[in-house]
Amino acid sequence: MDFNQGLPQVDLPSNMIHLGLGQPSSHLLPSKEMEKAAAHSLSRDDRSLLAYGEEQGNTNFRETLAEFLTSQYPNRVDPKQLLITNGNSQALDFICTLFAHPGDTVLVEEPSYFLALKIFADHKLNLVGIPVDDNGLVTDVLKERLETLTPAFLYTIPTFHNPASVTLSLKRREELVKICTQKNLLVVADEVYQLLNYSNDSVPSMGTWNNICPVISLGSFSKILAPGLRLGWMHTSPALVKKMTRSGLLTSGGGFNPFTSEIVNSAIHLGFLTTHIQKLKTVYRQRIEIFCDYLREYLPDQAVFKVPEGGYFIWVRFPDGIDTNIFRKAARKQNVDFHPGSLFSYRKELKNYMRLSFAFYDDKILAEGARRLGKVISNKLSKLHG
Amino acid sequence: MDFNQGLPQVDLPSNMIHLGLGQPSSHLLPSKEMEKAAAHSLSRDDRSLLAYGEEQGNTNFRETLAEFLTSQYPNRVDPKQLLITNGNSQALDFICTLFAHPGDTVLVEEPSYFLALKIFADHKLNLVGIPVDDNGLVTDVLKERLETLTPAFLYTIPTFHNPASVTLSLKRREELVKICTQKNLLVVADEVYQLLNYSNDSVPSMGTWNNICPVISLGSFSKILAPGLRLGWMHTSPALVKKMTRSGLLTSGGGFNPFTSEIVNSAIHLGFLTTHIQKLKTVYRQRIEIFCDYLREYLPDQAVFKVPEGGYFIWVRFPDGIDTNIFRKAARKQNVDFHPGSLFSYRKELKNYMRLSFAFYDDKILAEGARRLGKVISNKLSKLHG
Repeated sequence: MDFNQGLPQVDLPSNMIHLGLGQPSSHLLPSKEMEKAAAHSLSRDDRSLLAYGEEQGNTNFRETLAEFLTSQYPNRVDPKQLLITNGNSQALDFICTLFAHPGDTVLVEEPSYFLALKIFADHKLNLVGIPVDDNGLVTDVLKERLETLTPAFLYTIPTFHNPASVTLSLKRREELVKICTQKNLLVVADEVYQLLNYSNDSVPSMGTWNNICPVISLGSFSKILAPGLRLGWMHTSPALVKKMTRSGLLTSGGGFNPFTSEIVNSAIHLGFLTTHIQKLKTVYRQRIEIFCDYLREYLPDQAVFKVPEGGYFIWVRFPDGIDTNIFRKAARKQNVDFHPGSLFSYRKELKNYMRLSFAFYDDKILAEGARRLGKVISNKLSKLHG
Repeated sequence: MDFNQGLPQVDLPSNMIHLGLGQPSSHLLPSKEMEKAAAHSLSRDDRSLLAYGEEQGNTNFRETLAEFLTSQYPNRVDPKQLLITNGNSQALDFICTLFAHPGDTVLVEEPSYFLALKIFADHKLNLVGIPVDDNGLVTDVLKERLETLTPAFLYTIPTFHNPASVTLSLKRREELVKICTQKNLLVVADEVYQLLNYSNDSVPSMGTWNNICPVISLGSFSKILAPGLRLGWMHTSPALVKKMTRSGLLTSGGGFNPFTSEIVNSAIHLGFLTTHIQKLKTVYRQRIEIFCDYLREYLPDQAVFKVPEGGYFIWVRFPDGIDTNIFRKAARKQNVDFHPGSLFSYRKELKNYMRLSFAFYDDKILAEGARRLGKVISNKLSKLHG
């Protein structure tokens, strides 16, 4: 059996269960729906999707997306506040080019999304961390840092954090908006998991405050439809939209993805996006329940974690002094793997953590993965203590 | 009559004939073919086009593209030498991030593609020009400049230059390769018009020399299929491919456009790309003949130009001392426009030139445009001399 079919980007042995993978199961990719959506949009002989598009993204797609987001968010989203992107990685790269210079300081969370840290490194930015607790980014520390620092921007993952799985509380959001408005600090909020909410509680996206605070909320179809589309959006103020549409990249190439936008436009109109998000929530809720049960059964008691309420990740903490990297060699031998905590730290700390995800594998494989991982860790820990 | 239907990116009055526009006519966009290609690729239930793709672009698409390019080029192209992009503007932006630092010198041609200059400005690069003559970039001047300068790279448009419409001769290409190999200077060759050749003569793409010289040849589907696809490629050495696939942007987001790549893969397999290029050549050849006839009829004798042998552009030269910007106000009043020469100069010179294109409008509209433009210019010149 090949556990890893349908992973073009990652090359894994067929029997390896890589619990670090942060991408949707291949069988959850809406292949039939995208076929129908493409037929729907391309049969209309509308050539605008083949021409250089509006820099901001074509108006009809922004209207559809604004309506969709308004149906999901507590506040109305205006098409003027949207700029269509090639997904959050491209959006981040673009923001670094336009809003930062090499050597500038950028504030990141400790922990943060490890590949965002790599994009910042390519732009030669200097990273300074702000801790995250159970209520998200610790705004008091941010305030303190801003007494001496003038960063180019703050990069935050406010909802269902990657990897920490925490959500910035409403109170902290308001505090963050207050601080950043006062200091005129650009907030780049990576909200790729905002719509993958498995509980009934929800907090407004950071884009909500775009009229008072310099904030860019990054959204993406990667986690709610398909990563291969390379399609996402920024939700921000019309003034910041204008600054970005004047860039050389957008003036030269036109909108970032007019062809795929129009196909996704059809997918939204045909109701596929709403149905697909419902389906994902049902599947992921069930996986979380089963996977967490197995983790509790197989992981030693020293390993603690919170059950995620949204997003993709479980952030497992071990006692101070344990470096989860020491489990990896043995784990790989047993055909199981994970992402060590140090990967998510701009200064290679947080060694006593690991990131696990339930997004790629089905229940049974997750159970087997938990069993393999638990065995490796228990063995290693008993040797350490023996 | 609306002359400007199907221009999402540019907002023009319906009676305006903007002879500066460098994009294909709306009715030349292969809408039916893309519908069939999408149905072909999406009906196979291959989910790899919806997943995060290989950083370099998915193997099956690179194989198809390599085979296609091999059929068009004098030398074999290997899939290992290709990296799939979101088109040349994105490719240029990506190269600036990875291969240059703000403040670095980049060599550009004088004239050069005006929106590339804007992308370089966004990256805060310092531009130095190398002149272009009838045989393309003047390599002797390049050699001289390199005695004192150490640029991050050279940006050149070797074939059917935008805007100058000249082509770098084979002798000069060999000279360029020799100089850049010796100096280890990266050549970024924008070869978006390479396959739009209206004569029987052809010169090898700069990518041909990737095994001896540090060169990245940029190709795109924008001019040979449709700009809205936002799909292109780099043809370069496997070593440079590797450097780029290790970037944060590609590691995070995966390949730049797996979904659209797979649809274009079908378009190539179904023979649509080859047929479409043939069609474009037939249409453009005819337009050039008619448009040049009208330009000769209506433009005053002081205006000289060469008939293009490929690409999109006619580069019209006026006597020294004439600034073509002085024609623009009157031209716009008569509902005709063009791109003034200074736009294409990194130091706002070349004022006595203008760029015209035959890519967007049909014969009759081009004829009317030539008539309007000729009248405006003749009037203005007779006033100046009267």
